[in-house]
Amino acid sequence: MDIKKYMRKVGFTAKEASAKIATATSEQKNIFLENLAERIINHTNNIIKTNKEDIRIATKNNSDNAFIDRLTFNESNIKLMADGLLKVAKLNDPIGETLNKRKMPSGIEVAQMRVPLGVIGMIYESRPNVTIDAAALAIKSGNSIILRGGSESINTNNYLALLIKESLITANIPEGTVQIIETTDRAAVTEMITQTDFIDVIIPRGGKSLIEKISSEAKVQVIKHLDGNCHIYIDEYANIEQAIRITDNSKTQRFGTCNTLESLIVNSRIAALILPEIKNIFDKKSIEIRGCNRTIQLIPGVINATEDDFYEEYLGPTISCKIVDSIDEAIHHINKYSSAHTESIITENNENATKFMREIDSSSVMVNASTRFADGFEYGLGAEIGISTDKFHARGPVGLEGLTSLKYIVFGSGQIRT
Amino acid sequence: MDIKKYMRKVGFTAKEASAKIATATSEQKNIFLENLAERIINHTNNIIKTNKEDIRIATKNNSDNAFIDRLTFNESNIKLMADGLLKVAKLNDPIGETLNKRKMPSGIEVAQMRVPLGVIGMIYESRPNVTIDAAALAIKSGNSIILRGGSESINTNNYLALLIKESLITANIPEGTVQIIETTDRAAVTEMITQTDFIDVIIPRGGKSLIEKISSEAKVQVIKHLDGNCHIYIDEYANIEQAIRITDNSKTQRFGTCNTLESLIVNSRIAALILPEIKNIFDKKSIEIRGCNRTIQLIPGVINATEDDFYEEYLGPTISCKIVDSIDEAIHHINKYSSAHTESIITENNENATKFMREIDSSSVMVNASTRFADGFEYGLGAEIGISTDKFHARGPVGLEGLTSLKYIVFGSGQIRT
Repeated sequence: MDIKKYMRKVGFTAKEASAKIATATSEQKNIFLENLAERIINHTNNIIKTNKEDIRIATKNNSDNAFIDRLTFNESNIKLMADGLLKVAKLNDPIGETLNKRKMPSGIEVAQMRVPLGVIGMIYESRPNVTIDAAALAIKSGNSIILRGGSESINTNNYLALLIKESLITANIPEGTVQIIETTDRAAVTEMITQTDFIDVIIPRGGKSLIEKISSEAKVQVIKHLDGNCHIYIDEYANIEQAIRITDNSKTQRFGTCNTLESLIVNSRIAALILPEIKNIFDKKSIEIRGCNRTIQLIPGVINATEDDFYEEYLGPTISCKIVDSIDEAIHHINKYSSAHTESIITENNENATKFMREIDSSSVMVNASTRFADGFEYGLGAEIGISTDKFHARGPVGLEGLTSLKYIVFGSGQIRT
Repeated sequence: MDIKKYMRKVGFTAKEASAKIATATSEQKNIFLENLAERIINHTNNIIKTNKEDIRIATKNNSDNAFIDRLTFNESNIKLMADGLLKVAKLNDPIGETLNKRKMPSGIEVAQMRVPLGVIGMIYESRPNVTIDAAALAIKSGNSIILRGGSESINTNNYLALLIKESLITANIPEGTVQIIETTDRAAVTEMITQTDFIDVIIPRGGKSLIEKISSEAKVQVIKHLDGNCHIYIDEYANIEQAIRITDNSKTQRFGTCNTLESLIVNSRIAALILPEIKNIFDKKSIEIRGCNRTIQLIPGVINATEDDFYEEYLGPTISCKIVDSIDEAIHHINKYSSAHTESIITENNENATKFMREIDSSSVMVNASTRFADGFEYGLGAEIGISTDKFHARGPVGLEGLTSLKYIVFGSGQIRT
């Protein structure tokens, strides 16, 4: 297979299809989504059967349990995937929306119109439900999409591609609107991320190393979802009960998510009141605290944190801890070590809350809430294709709007410029 | 001079300053702008004197008149530059604005807050007023900025840098907020566009080749302002008088601007009524028409357009012309050949106007108005740092908002995720 030639054909097809899907009606898009939901439910057994082949190969390759878990389809998560499609169908169609209309002194009326980005390139690992979720969001937002899943889920993805194709035909949407790369050759990724003439945005989903590699080599714009080294700062004016409950929830509700708490910053005036109790809770849940020197002095048995610890996204039962003397020191520490994902302050002091909100340079900044809320669904976006740790274009959870752009539209009645 | 080391120092300084300017008060920013306006007026003679040295060198180097014209300061354009600063001072401060606030079922309140991008890297040629304009917009939008002007204006820019520094001190804003690269070595540009740890966005202003080179080599995000191959489509339902007036204005008001008309598309049902009259007007103004075969048959004396002509941004007294049989053919032609800058339809038919608005994939799409209106001031942005021909982040004229980002802010009262 000539990968370069194949990928140019895929890119060209996606670009051609993007002009059609950009002007598809809301009805057409929803027919696709509802039909695909139905088709997925009707073919549950076949999906599971095909998925078993991928699992068999992954097991043979000695993949670990977490990996196989992410790869596995069963009746319950297939149903969730179909329900997701129906939810996307119910969201407002963002395309064609007109904003910020104003009349100018020259007599022209100026506004902005929401339009699709064009062609999305999605590169992801293991979870085959991304194939369906990403196709749904792309179509609803009027974009065509090229999907490059991991080699480990190629059989499942190719089967899902068939279902998608049938639903596209049902909705009278060009088949080229959703394409799944048929080869597991990595050269296909290299082609995708450099096809600036066909692809408008690359969205990588996977480990930090994958995303860093793609970002550094891409010529196409990338919506990056890097790591979540999330912080809580317990201010001297914190409600202690709240601080403990939110810290516990942020760290222990789930270890492996990007909005999980990884580093706790505590004001020295409240540390002695709060850290021993947090230590008790974390001990019971086998969570290791790695603390600064002052933490260690305060609570025995805590391991000394290195500089690297404060940069670390553990994604597991470990947390770093630092005692500071002021909110300024906390903000400075967080802006230095954080990955700019999500940070929360616990305080009853409005001035400190406002200062934290304004000065912390992260995609989500919270007051008195668990970092685990940083999520497109919890924010009411209705969908999420990723969380951007970039400042450019989209920041934080990315829903349908993040897959669109605003063009200027001008209504005149013969005006010329003088 | 060790360019790498020097540029890392510049980048680090800008990053440090960006945290301070991000939280500067509106009053501080306006003091800077007003003080700089006053200082520029007071130092008009010195600016002109320093500028004469750059002109002397440019003349010695046999630079052409247009080049020297762009480089030249006089009392009148210095006054305009100072007035521009006062206008920016009067604009609303975009930073800290809170948008889209909503209460979620979990009890948290979610909103978005407008924040600066961080550090802007501006790379530009000849026009030294960009030094002042860009510094003003950066500061008003809470960003720090690194300015890299052309070697031809180094003396003028270094003098303006002194005035800027004094006004920064007056407003108690760190001097590192605005830095002008002191070397004309091109290696400095290479460093700037790859400093992803310090710089958040690169804005190049200059010829297409400069921008393409920067875009292809940059690792930092770029707001690209490429060429403006702008179209007018005269629909079969056009008001003929309007069509002629708007075509004339779009092409001839100024030749060298990016929103100047470069290609005229005419419906075949109206071509015979309209093209001879346009030919008369263009003949009087010495504008050459390069037409498709049907244009040539209709109006003798028109030169045959090649395929390349339809891709061309002439920036001069030349225009390409094509006759089409339908609005669909016009839209297809424009989306193929245009640079996605600005296109206008002349029609009295609402359905065709709406179709054109929706289906043309350009940063500005107009109905019955001159393409020359595509401009940040004409759109009411109050300022313009460039026009983006990209779809990502900012599209079309870029004012203060294009130099900002939205972060999510969450107000809780102890909520945890269950």
